[in-house]
Amino acid sequence: MAATMAARLDFVFGRVWPRPGLSRRDRRFVTLACVCAADGVDEINDHVYAALASGDISAEEMLEFVLHFAVYCGWPKGAQAEVAVRTQAARLAAERGEDVAAGRPLLESATLGPTDHDARLAEGERCFGEINLVSPPQRDSPYFQAGILAFVFGHLWQRPNLGRRERRLTTIACVGVSDALGPIYSHVGSALESGDISADEMNEIILQFSAYSGFPKGRVLQQAADAANVRISLSRKG
Amino acid sequence: MAATMAARLDFVFGRVWPRPGLSRRDRRFVTLACVCAADGVDEINDHVYAALASGDISAEEMLEFVLHFAVYCGWPKGAQAEVAVRTQAARLAAERGEDVAAGRPLLESATLGPTDHDARLAEGERCFGEINLVSPPQRDSPYFQAGILAFVFGHLWQRPNLGRRERRLTTIACVGVSDALGPIYSHVGSALESGDISADEMNEIILQFSAYSGFPKGRVLQQAADAANVRISLSRKG
Amino acid sequence: MAATMAARLDFVFGRVWPRPGLSRRDRRFVTLACVCAADGVDEINDHVYAALASGDISAEEMLEFVLHFAVYCGWPKGAQAEVAVRTQAARLAAERGEDVAAGRPLLESATLGPTDHDARLAEGERCFGEINLVSPPQRDSPYFQAGILAFVFGHLWQRPNLGRRERRLTTIACVGVSDALGPIYSHVGSALESGDISADEMNEIILQFSAYSGFPKGRVLQQAADAANVRISLSRKG
Repeated sequence: MAATMAARLDFVFGRVWPRPGLSRRDRRFVTLACVCAADGVDEINDHVYAALASGDISAEEMLEFVLHFAVYCGWPKGAQAEVAVRTQAARLAAERGEDVAAGRPLLESATLGPTDHDARLAEGERCFGEINLVSPPQRDSPYFQAGILAFVFGHLWQRPNLGRRERRLTTIACVGVSDALGPIYSHVGSALESGDISADEMNEIILQFSAYSGFPKGRVLQQAADAANVRISLSRKG
Repeated sequence: MAATMAARLDFVFGRVWPRPGLSRRDRRFVTLACVCAADGVDEINDHVYAALASGDISAEEMLEFVLHFAVYCGWPKGAQAEVAVRTQAARLAAERGEDVAAGRPLLESATLGPTDHDARLAEGERCFGEINLVSPPQRDSPYFQAGILAFVFGHLWQRPNLGRRERRLTTIACVGVSDALGPIYSHVGSALESGDISADEMNEIILQFSAYSGFPKGRVLQQAADAANVRISLSRKG
Repeated sequence: MAATMAARLDFVFGRVWPRPGLSRRDRRFVTLACVCAADGVDEINDHVYAALASGDISAEEMLEFVLHFAVYCGWPKGAQAEVAVRTQAARLAAERGEDVAAGRPLLESATLGPTDHDARLAEGERCFGEINLVSPPQRDSPYFQAGILAFVFGHLWQRPNLGRRERRLTTIACVGVSDALGPIYSHVGSALESGDISADEMNEIILQFSAYSGFPKGRVLQQAADAANVRISLSRKG
């Protein structure tokens, strides 16, 4: 057995996955984001299959995860993830003797949310504040108006089939692989400050992330978490 | 002077940028996508400033580029690019004695396009076919319905302030850095087959891309271009 | 011949690889890390094959390299590299008429190092200081305790079959592609301050890296090296 495989069995599967403090389901969302970002097709297929076959993540949740992941890591990587979910769901159905050919029904347009632009922007501003715990940006550039407000927070974060916790887990891993310091500090910090993710859970998320996306990127997340924990601790005393 | 700086002056600025076959403005869109994806803040700032100060790309185009880039490389990297555009536009205004404090007006909601979901999905399907030269995907998953059809092709590619050519250039560089084979073959192939980008221009795009994102990723783009050129050549003979 | 291929032959193979100041073997470790991180399968296979077939890197070293790379760039990319090493080693054996089917013997568990956790953490703290030239982190988070101390420095860096120089070369390239500023400054700085890598060698490493992972990422490494060289120069005068 090669060194990598042995070390992986020992460290990643022997020491990281079994740790208490974060459920296996939660670890899957972090891992899936890391693996889909890293582009190895076999690895993506294996993790998608395992998440579905174990029952840890349902097919609806998995498809919604792909959309969230695509937004945070870009549509090209999302396309690969979507292919993996479709092929692995079909593989699982075939193994279980279920009807693979049935296909999925078309989604209703209603799943796209409110149609009125001003209502949607207002919703986006409200949701942005709720997730990031800071004032929303001005509607003064395409990135912020059409992107962040109308789509990312005015629609994506409010969609059904994936809870806020799962979106937090996925987003933390996605900003971590993206190396963008502003979003890293914002999302790690607001996950902790909102109480959605505890300090101990965040530490487990970062170890899981480091095992899959490498320790250099993990260290940046840890620094963001440490800074947020100091801030939170000071504000409680203050 | 360190070896890298010398090689860069000699190779990148001496041999790549001055080549015929692709305008400096076109090279800037490719380069900006590569540089924004690579995350070095000084490098991003330098290239954004140069593109604006040279007049090769207007401020409106640059802001629209950020949205397109964010969609294809993920919002966290987009956030860094947006910051760079704002700070460098302010720096340039200050240097020119223009009013920096004026700020940008809020955008009208009308810039977000049609509000009716079915109209938007139908538009997305039409535009998807026009850009990718294949039938649009089914509306049967969040990634394809809410993402690709309603947002990416139902809205993004149809926005004003950036033409289809500039979106092609940006997208090719973005799929190139993303390592996603499906989108690479799709976007490189359809850019050539549509005639929007000629075979010679594509070769120049790939060289410019390779200088900024490395030859290993450039090689994958070249393979996609070679495959498309063979296909096009065969269909013309056929 | 397309422009990129010509430029690659001229610049990368004509001007970068033949430079003095860094051995071809050293350049291979930098290049392998860059190429494995960039995900192009053909490119990975070509470089792995060339390194093995030239005799510059042995099969044992190559497998150990994969483990080191996997830890720093994440296991998903490591999995791709492992596949490449296995297929290219088999290809080479077949070409040489050697027994491909013999396979590799399972590694002894003894290669995993000490089992006593406290001994391992103490070793990790010692080795962390030796590599990074700063005090080890507290054992107060999973990332630092289970990850950095128990695994990365308590085990990985102390494994046989790859020397410290080769681990330095690989790590510098890995942190460079990861865009994580803290680890970049830490590993580039400590490689120089320890004397393991000279200032001239570092400049060659950065040029080799830039040719394969792009100049924008190379510039960040250069800034880290320049900062370290100033610090070292000042401390010698002091």
